[in-house]
Amino acid sequence: MAEDTVEPAARDDEGYALQRDRVEQVLLAINAGDSARLGKLLDQMHPADVADLMEQVGDKTRQLLLRFWGRDIDGEILSELDEGVRAEVIESLPDSVLSEAVLDLESDDIVDLVEDLEDDRKDIVLGSLPAAERIAVEQALSWPEYSAGRLMQREVVSAPEHWTVGQAIDFLRREDARLPDQFYHVILVDPTMTPTGYVTLGKLLSSSRKLPLKSITEHSFRTVPVDMDEGEVAYAFNQYHLISVPVVDHDDRLVGVITIDDAMAVLDDEHEEDILLLAGVAEDSSLSDSAMETTKLRLPWLAVNLATAILASLVIALFDDVIAEVVALAVLMPIVASMGGNAGTQSLTVAVRAIATKDLTGSNVWRVVGRELVVGLLNGLVFAVVMGIVALLWFGSGQIGAVIAVAMVVNLAVAALAGILVPVTMEKLGVDPALASGTFVTTVTDVVGFFAFLGLAAVVLL
Amino acid sequence: MAEDTVEPAARDDEGYALQRDRVEQVLLAINAGDSARLGKLLDQMHPADVADLMEQVGDKTRQLLLRFWGRDIDGEILSELDEGVRAEVIESLPDSVLSEAVLDLESDDIVDLVEDLEDDRKDIVLGSLPAAERIAVEQALSWPEYSAGRLMQREVVSAPEHWTVGQAIDFLRREDARLPDQFYHVILVDPTMTPTGYVTLGKLLSSSRKLPLKSITEHSFRTVPVDMDEGEVAYAFNQYHLISVPVVDHDDRLVGVITIDDAMAVLDDEHEEDILLLAGVAEDSSLSDSAMETTKLRLPWLAVNLATAILASLVIALFDDVIAEVVALAVLMPIVASMGGNAGTQSLTVAVRAIATKDLTGSNVWRVVGRELVVGLLNGLVFAVVMGIVALLWFGSGQIGAVIAVAMVVNLAVAALAGILVPVTMEKLGVDPALASGTFVTTVTDVVGFFAFLGLAAVVLL
Repeated sequence: MAEDTVEPAARDDEGYALQRDRVEQVLLAINAGDSARLGKLLDQMHPADVADLMEQVGDKTRQLLLRFWGRDIDGEILSELDEGVRAEVIESLPDSVLSEAVLDLESDDIVDLVEDLEDDRKDIVLGSLPAAERIAVEQALSWPEYSAGRLMQREVVSAPEHWTVGQAIDFLRREDARLPDQFYHVILVDPTMTPTGYVTLGKLLSSSRKLPLKSITEHSFRTVPVDMDEGEVAYAFNQYHLISVPVVDHDDRLVGVITIDDAMAVLDDEHEEDILLLAGVAEDSSLSDSAMETTKLRLPWLAVNLATAILASLVIALFDDVIAEVVALAVLMPIVASMGGNAGTQSLTVAVRAIATKDLTGSNVWRVVGRELVVGLLNGLVFAVVMGIVALLWFGSGQIGAVIAVAMVVNLAVAALAGILVPVTMEKLGVDPALASGTFVTTVTDVVGFFAFLGLAAVVLL
Repeated sequence: MAEDTVEPAARDDEGYALQRDRVEQVLLAINAGDSARLGKLLDQMHPADVADLMEQVGDKTRQLLLRFWGRDIDGEILSELDEGVRAEVIESLPDSVLSEAVLDLESDDIVDLVEDLEDDRKDIVLGSLPAAERIAVEQALSWPEYSAGRLMQREVVSAPEHWTVGQAIDFLRREDARLPDQFYHVILVDPTMTPTGYVTLGKLLSSSRKLPLKSITEHSFRTVPVDMDEGEVAYAFNQYHLISVPVVDHDDRLVGVITIDDAMAVLDDEHEEDILLLAGVAEDSSLSDSAMETTKLRLPWLAVNLATAILASLVIALFDDVIAEVVALAVLMPIVASMGGNAGTQSLTVAVRAIATKDLTGSNVWRVVGRELVVGLLNGLVFAVVMGIVALLWFGSGQIGAVIAVAMVVNLAVAALAGILVPVTMEKLGVDPALASGTFVTTVTDVVGFFAFLGLAAVVLL
């Protein structure tokens, strides 16, 4: 039995990627239209793995899968799906199936599902929830998107701060059926429902019944305001090793609780956003998007890049007479641009990451800017020597060698500075530094690189 | 009081970045050599925030801080420090202070601290631990780096599978002082110490004492082998919403437990690694590295880039006669290269991220490759038309317009293909796809871009 749990049935031995033969069995069952077999195969899998499978198969296969099995889909699978695929799946489900599926979920997962629905379907789903749950979901939806209020679950386990361990345990036994699936603390509240501390379940279990709860509260206790950005919440979980955090409204009253598994999912999403934005890919793009959708998502960034590339070309055009004279310049030109672009990207990525992890702040920004400048100059000197010699040997001209050497120092120093100053400035302006920094930085390095190299060449060689 | 917890004292109201005036107070106390004031300020801060502050101040300030306050440093602060700064701090601490600091930590944190120490200091620290703890740390160190065995804590809370809820609670009360600070499950074991299920503390608290533990075990139960890679472990936590996971040895015996806060830290590290490697920055670089260290870490990547840039220049050199004839080609050349590089980076980043999240697998790789090719062709067509017209208007030559249009389609299609095929191939070869994919992809796009553009120009224009 333990053997079975070490390597979950649907995953292969190299780790957790979906097992290929399991996927093939599912595909066979779909193609055979064998609903019974399909249901059996999918029931054995974790909802997160079923969701991955639905994302990985093509559009047509997914529609067949839904036709043969869609009525059995459960809410957890819907929760696990990427937004794009989820919208498509939800659209294909009859109202009754959707309402049924949503019933099993905790309020935070229902909110996550419902917030993207069109109004008429949202009303149908909300209408089919029990009154208490419906109100909870509607209240959550009243908080801004990406806020703690949307992320939290409203099912909280709290106790008056004057209770003893025994009173709390008796209360939990009575409440059994109404408790959330997962909770890690009992939150102590004062008579106005303001949280004043919390007790871990481990301490509650191991302490004597007579002890007051107040005497075993955790030092790590902190709360978050309901309108805090979810990225800040995830940062706090990671920074302070939190497991669950009470959420309070503007009057400091307890309104919900956020648990670490949700914070971990947010952290993962924020990572995805950063890495994709840095590469000029829309943050909400997904592997299951069609070619047409993907083209539309990537085109705007390429268009911006084209505009900046044309700007760089205009700089080159300024010097077309010197290039016509010395074609070696056209040969060497891309080296200056490429080195500048790379050095700028290094500096930029470190800065964007450091801003995200709050390691780059007002206290150290100037020291880091200084460091980047020195790094740019040092690397510039190294590659100035290398490229000076390469150009001398290649084209037999000390002058061309000298020109590319100086251009290399100038460009790598400017690249390093742009790499840090651009994202820091964007952050100050309230723009996500991952968003357009890449274009700005490469525009600067291209323009400065070409200008330094060709301009110097014009002075020295003509 | 609640007010105080909403915004922790050392953090400002915009969120969790270190509060600037707190940092300034600390700096003042350091400069005044006021140990008492310094100790008071730092004691009020969370260890993770003290660690951030130590990373953010300069080298000299950090040395002063350690001189006035180093003897009071606690193990948790050491645990929170970046590896580079930590090595420097540990080196400056007397053996007695280091041994004392380490005593407060759980075994997984001690392992994390001790694994990077030099042998003689490692022996001193290990020698000062209580025997049971020392053996636990030594056993953990016998597992490979970055394995579940290094990540887990050895303090586990387990119970025989035939116990009742009441027996488990009585056991926990007796064990109080010996229980780990944080635990979320009681793990059920059979007589050979093989884990067979687990019970959440919430269920234990809310169930009647007579119930057998077996009747309230969790469906989500799974174990991980002690030699599993920590990245896989973190993936499993995120995918299956786990909170803690028992770790088993090769005989399926329980040897430790991994909790979600450690998995979250690993997920964060893996992301940092991906984003930095994609930008050609060594994964272990840190904002607190000196300019010289940083230069050394970034130089190798720039050197590789120089080699590939020279390769691209050699392609240009093949066509120097046509450039000498038509200088417009030198002006337009960087546009083709830049568009190819950007399209390749888009495709590459999506692929690297999808491989990391296991969304790109054997089941869908060919469909995704096909999609990328179509996307490349579609974007290529759009920008072929745009650049064809721009070139025609700019240089008054339909031939140059036609040449750049065709080159654009070829280059964007090749960029899209290289962007996905390179990382997929590296993954197959067992190399981290984030590592050198960037260089390969831009080399392909530069070489193909220049060759297509200038080669066509040579045929059409000469």
